[in-house]
Amino acid sequence: MVDMDGTTETFCPYFHHAIELIGRRWTGAILRAMLRGKTRFSDIGGAIPGLSDRLLSERLKELEAEGVVERLVYPETPVRIEYRLTEKGRALEATVVAVADWAEKWVAHEPAHA
Amino acid sequence: MVDMDGTTETFCPYFHHAIELIGRRWTGAILRAMLRGKTRFSDIGGAIPGLSDRLLSERLKELEAEGVVERLVYPETPVRIEYRLTEKGRALEATVVAVADWAEKWVAHEPAHA
Repeated sequence: MVDMDGTTETFCPYFHHAIELIGRRWTGAILRAMLRGKTRFSDIGGAIPGLSDRLLSERLKELEAEGVVERLVYPETPVRIEYRLTEKGRALEATVVAVADWAEKWVAHEPAHA
Repeated sequence: MVDMDGTTETFCPYFHHAIELIGRRWTGAILRAMLRGKTRFSDIGGAIPGLSDRLLSERLKELEAEGVVERLVYPETPVRIEYRLTEKGRALEATVVAVADWAEKWVAHEPAHA
């Protein structure tokens, strides 16, 4: 079967990988908090009600492995650790904004979610 | 703590709901296939390697419950069933495009995913 756009393939493994990475439980909220300037573990976690330290740590490790987040260690006393979005991570802002716009228009005003 | 944009809240339950809905396993690929014109169960499933009929059925029911997809039954012989994106569902195109652009730029060309 040929698609509407004339190609024969709809499935793209890169798209699939990307959307499931971003949509993994808590990852969207973590990215949003980081795009809004949070860099410390406790600040990221504190911005997301219900997210445990264990899961935040797991998600940050996944995002680091994907090259979306980098973990910076400042050898001070006490040691200071920051999590920063890489260029690849900051490039997710367009996606986060698109989802936020959709949510604002289509989810926020629904009786079921009000 | 005050965010960079001057607000005190980063967490938005609507955003959280939206991104985790879209990112649920297979849902992104299903939305993409439907945005590209697939309307029949077998065509949607056929466009996504590895997706079982059971999971496709489950995801379509979830999307129907969210008002993203509508299921149309045409009383012909044999009965014809179509799945269509609602206006709310078609509004996800901007998000799907944003993710696809990001994936094309940042995932497709990585050695690990090549």
